[in-house]
Amino acid sequence: MRRLKATISYDGTLFAGYQVQPGERTVQLELENVLTKMHKGSKVKVTASGRTDARVHATGQVIHFDTNLTIPLDRYKKALNVQLPRDIRVLAVEEAESDFHARFSVSGKRYRYIWNCEEVQSPFRRQYTVDTNGVKPDVEKMRDAAQFIIGTHDFSCFCAANTSVVDKVRTVHDLTFEWHGEELHMVIEGNGFLYNMVRIIAGTLWEVGIGKREPSDLLEIVASMDRGKAGKTAPAQGLYLEKVYY
Amino acid sequence: MRRLKATISYDGTLFAGYQVQPGERTVQLELENVLTKMHKGSKVKVTASGRTDARVHATGQVIHFDTNLTIPLDRYKKALNVQLPRDIRVLAVEEAESDFHARFSVSGKRYRYIWNCEEVQSPFRRQYTVDTNGVKPDVEKMRDAAQFIIGTHDFSCFCAANTSVVDKVRTVHDLTFEWHGEELHMVIEGNGFLYNMVRIIAGTLWEVGIGKREPSDLLEIVASMDRGKAGKTAPAQGLYLEKVYY
Repeated sequence: MRRLKATISYDGTLFAGYQVQPGERTVQLELENVLTKMHKGSKVKVTASGRTDARVHATGQVIHFDTNLTIPLDRYKKALNVQLPRDIRVLAVEEAESDFHARFSVSGKRYRYIWNCEEVQSPFRRQYTVDTNGVKPDVEKMRDAAQFIIGTHDFSCFCAANTSVVDKVRTVHDLTFEWHGEELHMVIEGNGFLYNMVRIIAGTLWEVGIGKREPSDLLEIVASMDRGKAGKTAPAQGLYLEKVYY
Repeated sequence: MRRLKATISYDGTLFAGYQVQPGERTVQLELENVLTKMHKGSKVKVTASGRTDARVHATGQVIHFDTNLTIPLDRYKKALNVQLPRDIRVLAVEEAESDFHARFSVSGKRYRYIWNCEEVQSPFRRQYTVDTNGVKPDVEKMRDAAQFIIGTHDFSCFCAANTSVVDKVRTVHDLTFEWHGEELHMVIEGNGFLYNMVRIIAGTLWEVGIGKREPSDLLEIVASMDRGKAGKTAPAQGLYLEKVYY
């Protein structure tokens, strides 16, 4: 048996999310179907760095699986890409140590969130960005507010209520904004993220950007540890899992 | 009655093409449905500069229609965008002369064709470019070949066989190639294009780019007036109608 680590990208539009759910088309299901076929029907289990929700994208999701096939890495990658649907692509396949675990070995992650601020959103961007209907936020205020998020905190305020995780302390290493033409990108890096954390941060900082909240409000919001104090969860299609660190 | 001219963009992925066809989702159908609803049920006919095929995109298609609504232009545009599905967007609405005709008044068009030459095509580009499986063509040869196409010719060689058009003489004003990262764009401008002409030119020049044909072969192909001498019709999803000149 070899353990392989693969970096994959997927367009989340047509998936009910990453994780297998009965009766739904998910990324994990498509990966396991192809790998199981390659292993002549013996079931291959795929483990990812974490799940992503319906319509959330990935440009650098990481998975691992065990295989008894002796195919060279580059041919393994090609074989997967030939059989996978085109909305999932395998970018790299590497040998991993037998104790490497795509989820438990994670040391950090980077996500990107994209708002499209064109007066009329390009139809080609509707599934890949959030339409602000031409509203351009005050990014300096969003940057100011971000300073209250960077660091190690109990992030209960940015965690969806329906979660079973007990320890909600995480470290956000970096949280920056950059314009790419008329699209605003938020890039956030940390040692781990709670359920919906990036989307709730995006939604809350957006409210700062359009003047509904002040940057300094973030100090109270974080201290409150109360999901009710933070802003709305930003829509799924603006979110990308970009990099997983090990 | 006012005649309005509108510039629209659409993602062709989920359409059976521009023109109304029984039982199919088309761009014209969606536009006419929304306009007819805005006119309280009295049928509004929309006329475009020309049809586009299934999965072909537009960033600058032009349409006209007649209306008795006295809504200001900017509000007209907003009303259309609110009601249209998000894969069609109205970019501009202008007053037109009563004798303006989106199809018969056309003096020229510009199309763009995009090949994605990444080693592994991004899943986000699968519906918007043609995957070359990492093959990068010799663009200098494609440029050399293009010189035999620019000008006024009978373009029967680049016209799908099933057409009723008799006069196949057209003028290609410009035909250029440009790299955008790992994507190759072909931009072609002319006074008019035959059915499938841009896609057959793209397919033929691609064959030059990968060494299956020589640039000078284009001289013979054009002179032959024989569709059978030209290359394959390139796939629909790489094609964009970019601008219509009047």
